[in-house]
Amino acid sequence: MKPLGSLIPLAEAKALVDANIRPIERTETVPLNCLVHRVLAQEVRSSIDVPPYNRSAMDGYAVKAEDTFSAGKFQPVELDCVGAVNAGDVPEKEVKKGTCIQIATGAMIPDGANAVVMVENTERSGKKVQIYRSVPPGANVSKRGEDIKKDSAVLGGGEVLAPSKVGVLAALGIKEATVYSMPRVSVIPTGNEVAEVGKELRKGQVYDINSHTLSSILRENGCVPVLHHIVEDTAEALTSAFREASDSDMIVLSGGSSAGERDVLEGVVSKLGKVVFHGVQIKPGKPTIFGAIGEVPVFGMPGYPTACLTNGYVFLLPAARKMARLPPKRDVTRAVPMAKKYAADIGRHQFLTVKIKDGEAHAVFKESGTITSIANADGWIEIPPNVDIVEKGTMVDVHLF
Amino acid sequence: MKPLGSLIPLAEAKALVDANIRPIERTETVPLNCLVHRVLAQEVRSSIDVPPYNRSAMDGYAVKAEDTFSAGKFQPVELDCVGAVNAGDVPEKEVKKGTCIQIATGAMIPDGANAVVMVENTERSGKKVQIYRSVPPGANVSKRGEDIKKDSAVLGGGEVLAPSKVGVLAALGIKEATVYSMPRVSVIPTGNEVAEVGKELRKGQVYDINSHTLSSILRENGCVPVLHHIVEDTAEALTSAFREASDSDMIVLSGGSSAGERDVLEGVVSKLGKVVFHGVQIKPGKPTIFGAIGEVPVFGMPGYPTACLTNGYVFLLPAARKMARLPPKRDVTRAVPMAKKYAADIGRHQFLTVKIKDGEAHAVFKESGTITSIANADGWIEIPPNVDIVEKGTMVDVHLF
Repeated sequence: MKPLGSLIPLAEAKALVDANIRPIERTETVPLNCLVHRVLAQEVRSSIDVPPYNRSAMDGYAVKAEDTFSAGKFQPVELDCVGAVNAGDVPEKEVKKGTCIQIATGAMIPDGANAVVMVENTERSGKKVQIYRSVPPGANVSKRGEDIKKDSAVLGGGEVLAPSKVGVLAALGIKEATVYSMPRVSVIPTGNEVAEVGKELRKGQVYDINSHTLSSILRENGCVPVLHHIVEDTAEALTSAFREASDSDMIVLSGGSSAGERDVLEGVVSKLGKVVFHGVQIKPGKPTIFGAIGEVPVFGMPGYPTACLTNGYVFLLPAARKMARLPPKRDVTRAVPMAKKYAADIGRHQFLTVKIKDGEAHAVFKESGTITSIANADGWIEIPPNVDIVEKGTMVDVHLF
Repeated sequence: MKPLGSLIPLAEAKALVDANIRPIERTETVPLNCLVHRVLAQEVRSSIDVPPYNRSAMDGYAVKAEDTFSAGKFQPVELDCVGAVNAGDVPEKEVKKGTCIQIATGAMIPDGANAVVMVENTERSGKKVQIYRSVPPGANVSKRGEDIKKDSAVLGGGEVLAPSKVGVLAALGIKEATVYSMPRVSVIPTGNEVAEVGKELRKGQVYDINSHTLSSILRENGCVPVLHHIVEDTAEALTSAFREASDSDMIVLSGGSSAGERDVLEGVVSKLGKVVFHGVQIKPGKPTIFGAIGEVPVFGMPGYPTACLTNGYVFLLPAARKMARLPPKRDVTRAVPMAKKYAADIGRHQFLTVKIKDGEAHAVFKESGTITSIANADGWIEIPPNVDIVEKGTMVDVHLF
């Protein structure tokens, strides 16, 4: 039982994690209806013009614009209507001087026509159409290729497919696209006191919380969690778990709350790979281990649920998103006054979970061991290492969950 | 071909949609590893105490607090160490006056002990342990039930299961939970000019964009889109599509850009159910139909991709979230100056898509027909119906996608 060695500051720990996470290179082909939020792996070029033909942007009459130039509110021009074209139709007739063709929104512009007069500006009786407004050439016509030109680069590799970008792929008739694979992250619960959910608790045991909270964070942030069975805190068991997880893109150990367990883990990681840091100046979450085995980053999270989950948000979430090639999470904060004076620890960057009630931030933190410290909170505030007292009424930024 | 009747204001349309959407009542049982972001359908009560035993919050020595009262930095108290208890162990020995037991974080407190002295405040040599700090009763002990008390209500029906709340379920050993089902929303593409993605485009056709953008929005907001084949714009075809979709929780028709098509749809909806409104004072997205067939809300979206997708964000998204029992989406806005003067339409609430470049908002809108008007944008600004000019430099709130 030895205490942790030298702790590193939060900013340094974050930078070290970032420096050791590489965006995923593996790709896969995914059908159109599963593409939302996936990350495009290749530039997409259009093989067609969109729209593929000149089409009407309005319901009305396709005309030669020149025929309407003298039209006005009180001196309509009269044209002969020689046909109609609906959306999806191929026009059979041509618009000749003095004639027009009735046209629906989205329909192909017939040959000979170069403009559309909106139905609101016309009056029809039989085959005769009175035009009450002049239109310039091109009026109410969407030109072929106006939206997307054939052979143009439409979406770039690395773009996240928002609904509108899924729409662009659909516009091009693309049934499936090559996207980056979602990183597979092995989540390995450790700890001799931890029991699998669904089994009977033996005396001295608690249920495994951490692998479920961490898996949930991974799932929300573009990764696929692969949940392992509970691993004993011995060098042999950990080594064989690492071997089993070696085809993962990242490994997260959720547990190891005591100094003894942390030492075993640190020993195994440094033997199989390297330990980048062990111990961060934060509260909760101090005894965090980060390293790599080969190219696979490894997180050793503290065993206490609040500490583990805080670390999940602080370290694992940005790592997961970077690996998945998603942009950093948009942090939504709300500035409210502190409801009561709070005494913090000098020398550690503290993440304090709070509930917003009547427009004020109330600390809900009980201790690192309690999952309810986070589950009952609306978000957290950060207290820098050089602050020891947050006075009642101080404005704090609550980072909402 | 008749123009739309009276348009209703945006706020009225939104209120009418809201009044006609009922949160889903159907529930299902889902395993723990798929619960993140689902909505709990029932109150969850704890059948156990968490932690289920008094446990140590630190690595150190379990003691009788009374034995330490005289300890200090320069006058340690010496205790006999009679054993050790690790996490997961059931302690075999009792702590008697003058003795202590080595204990790991998370381990059960042995009988007779009522406090833990941190290892940092001790010194050991053989079986003798020097205690350099006094501790009060209860120090560094997490009491049985401190986190969650047996028989207490822990989570309520209607709560959205964030990672921390998934953790609470795990803490209770709950393998699966009853949650509200995700609403099944039929997405029916209509329009005679629309071709299914993956098929060859015939002359006069464009690919179906709208059902894919709307499905993406539904998928992002707690619903399961059920994509139908393309339906012809006839009363018979629409009626039979509605019949096929009648077991859905909601129906969205994506298409019907021309006045003729809208009339057919309005006729069918009013025959099978009721039309709540047809036409809204917005741009783009004016020719929107909303109604209900029996208890099933029906949206008839405009055919133009930008108009359809704008409506997707303005009307469908809040409806989907309400039906799925999710809280309203957090709107993230960014205030930037307008890059150029923009002339808007008086009398219609306009949603203008913009790109933020060099800290300024640039309109990217081409016309309602172009999907790239949205796909190239970072967000949108709203221009109220009574504003006709947005001057260069005016600060606008960009709602980020």
